[in-house]
Amino acid sequence: MKSIDTNIYDVVCVSPRNHMVFTPLLASTCVGTLEFRSVAEPIGRIQPAISHAPGSYFFLARCAALDPESHTVHCETVTDGTISASLEPWKFQVSYDKLVIALGAEASTFGINGVKEHATFLREVHHAQEIRRKLLLNLMLSDVPGISEEEKRRLLHCVVIGGGPTGVEFSGELSDFITSDVHERYTHVKEYIHVTLIEANEILSSFDVRLRQYATKQLTKSGVRLVRGVVKDVQPENIILNDGTKVPYGLLVWSTGVGPSQFTKSLELPKSPGGRIGVDEWLRVPSIQDTFAIGDCSGFLESTQKTVLPALAQVAERQGKYLARLLNQIGKAGGGYANQAKNIDLGDQFVYKHLGSMATVGRYKALVDLRQSKEAKGLSLAGFVSWFIWRSAYLTRVVSWRNRFYVAINWLTTLIFGRDISRI
Amino acid sequence: MKSIDTNIYDVVCVSPRNHMVFTPLLASTCVGTLEFRSVAEPIGRIQPAISHAPGSYFFLARCAALDPESHTVHCETVTDGTISASLEPWKFQVSYDKLVIALGAEASTFGINGVKEHATFLREVHHAQEIRRKLLLNLMLSDVPGISEEEKRRLLHCVVIGGGPTGVEFSGELSDFITSDVHERYTHVKEYIHVTLIEANEILSSFDVRLRQYATKQLTKSGVRLVRGVVKDVQPENIILNDGTKVPYGLLVWSTGVGPSQFTKSLELPKSPGGRIGVDEWLRVPSIQDTFAIGDCSGFLESTQKTVLPALAQVAERQGKYLARLLNQIGKAGGGYANQAKNIDLGDQFVYKHLGSMATVGRYKALVDLRQSKEAKGLSLAGFVSWFIWRSAYLTRVVSWRNRFYVAINWLTTLIFGRDISRI
Repeated sequence: MKSIDTNIYDVVCVSPRNHMVFTPLLASTCVGTLEFRSVAEPIGRIQPAISHAPGSYFFLARCAALDPESHTVHCETVTDGTISASLEPWKFQVSYDKLVIALGAEASTFGINGVKEHATFLREVHHAQEIRRKLLLNLMLSDVPGISEEEKRRLLHCVVIGGGPTGVEFSGELSDFITSDVHERYTHVKEYIHVTLIEANEILSSFDVRLRQYATKQLTKSGVRLVRGVVKDVQPENIILNDGTKVPYGLLVWSTGVGPSQFTKSLELPKSPGGRIGVDEWLRVPSIQDTFAIGDCSGFLESTQKTVLPALAQVAERQGKYLARLLNQIGKAGGGYANQAKNIDLGDQFVYKHLGSMATVGRYKALVDLRQSKEAKGLSLAGFVSWFIWRSAYLTRVVSWRNRFYVAINWLTTLIFGRDISRI
Repeated sequence: MKSIDTNIYDVVCVSPRNHMVFTPLLASTCVGTLEFRSVAEPIGRIQPAISHAPGSYFFLARCAALDPESHTVHCETVTDGTISASLEPWKFQVSYDKLVIALGAEASTFGINGVKEHATFLREVHHAQEIRRKLLLNLMLSDVPGISEEEKRRLLHCVVIGGGPTGVEFSGELSDFITSDVHERYTHVKEYIHVTLIEANEILSSFDVRLRQYATKQLTKSGVRLVRGVVKDVQPENIILNDGTKVPYGLLVWSTGVGPSQFTKSLELPKSPGGRIGVDEWLRVPSIQDTFAIGDCSGFLESTQKTVLPALAQVAERQGKYLARLLNQIGKAGGGYANQAKNIDLGDQFVYKHLGSMATVGRYKALVDLRQSKEAKGLSLAGFVSWFIWRSAYLTRVVSWRNRFYVAINWLTTLIFGRDISRI
């Protein structure tokens, strides 16, 4: 949306949230290192045309159905019921010349019982808010007179399921919070708080083996218990592993990766391996006119003989930029209207070049893996310098100068005053 | 809690929230001028002893009953149900040598039907969060295709009930938000948004007549409609006034002042005029041993022949400081334990000297009334200089350097980047 030429196109955005979340820094907001607002960017700031251009709009709504024949999207307003019973969802239609599907993905539960009810995901700002509230609640509840030792240990046992970058970064942030803030501000219960990271295979499986070992060492040093196991069942206060072990928890964060959303599944379009919306080399949905799909909801069709790209921010960002250029080019060549782009030369295909992966493991340490793929050779770094690269790189990526400024200020105040512990 | 001598006393704080709210700046957080965290101060930062001293604690709980005979308070943990069904409130008791009751007050509804269900108060951070979410939701909903003109006007009609400082400041902030942010970021609907302030008598009745007139002029100039009226009934989308007028609203903020809470009412203690907990000249609850009451929940007993002080932050702050000194003095004289303070000289009585009142009316304008009471003569100012005094004075009162820093940064970014409109 940022790079689309608003002299050519009117832009209409339909989304159930009015902001973009900079997910790579979301884990830091759970423990107060960063503020929630520092990682959220209002869409009206990303593409100001939706705020004032006559034909451009933002609709706080979800997409309910797609009618490619008539070039129409059926929508339904999001009113999150709780606020006022009087607000019934309102149905409306949006006609389009070009449609870009960028639905994202949903956290995978692998059909395990109880995950949705008792675990918290880490994909949206409200997830991070819930984790922060729960963590602070448990810290305070465990300090109440008469609570048993066992219950105290349960309340303060933070369990993270999934050892990908999100799970590892969250565990690192949590152990930083425990070392520098809980030890100072919750002295009465500091001996009871523990972090366990459960992963079925290896942690950070996409990283270089040397970095994986480094991460394992660092996390263990920070007091994070690494457990290899598969979750069978999630109960309100315990998780049951495949081998029958019962693990009591007070906070359960689920970060085992993502899969297609219900709506993506419901779309009757050809799918890529993994059930994503299938796209061709130009990110078009080839079976219907004027439709493109980008980000975590899309994947290359098998016919393209390309592998489906990982669900990463850098893939989505690169696809977005490519598609904006492509649409601007189509528009300039006179193909901007519906059904007018059939004979237009699309130019270069979308080619993804992986810039590398990063993850922080807490205590001013991070991993930077600059290899282009899992099998390739290349530079990899771990330690303080990596952590510095990690912070600098993310600081340059947080969309706006306002958020860049806020993230820097947050980091500074966390350093000086410690993390914020008010439970609001 | 801040000034209590922790070498003499262990401090135990029982409160349903783990932070203090700087209410005078709460209105600014509703529209994004300030961030929520900038006006919330964790109690552990106000009195660090509760975090680590062996006998000092903070309990996230509400007080359920008071047993002055055995010097015991009965408490119940606060778990706000929604988070996990498994958390049942936990009951426990706290024994005390000295008890300070500082329960605050509750928003008054005057028994009007529907206020609790449909209006939002402006006393806690979660109220401000609710107002912000609702305001942004209504701005976005009103932009959806097919919404009728009438419904658009209703959704964007912000009604404030009560013309005290809170109601006036909120109306001012709202009209600032409309002028500088809605006009730029919600251009499609800017003609539909309106603010109405309904007050039964005069606005800012405690202020100098000249200031009242100035406020009326300024608010009217900013587009706030001032209506004299009494609310009879609050329905989900309309309020009904005493004269039968039906006023449709999208956002309803209720700020008609405060009264004693349910728990205050339930305490079988002698009350002051207005139903507050009655105290003597030294802020003691004279009918029972070792008990004091301060802030909005307390008032002078008729027997003292002093008038009940207004429910203001500056009264509560002065009482807190006085009481901390008194308790420290009692402790040093050997009266710190239960039932040991009977023959100790309490020294000076608590005397309240009003420093003046302030309120902002938006657009860099404020009122400063330095008269000591409603009837007294004295200096009063209105305009930009007052606004500057208002900001400076509040900046020095926000408890900690951290929040002082954050408030200053928030004001700066609002000036540069505008208010934040992400609905998180």
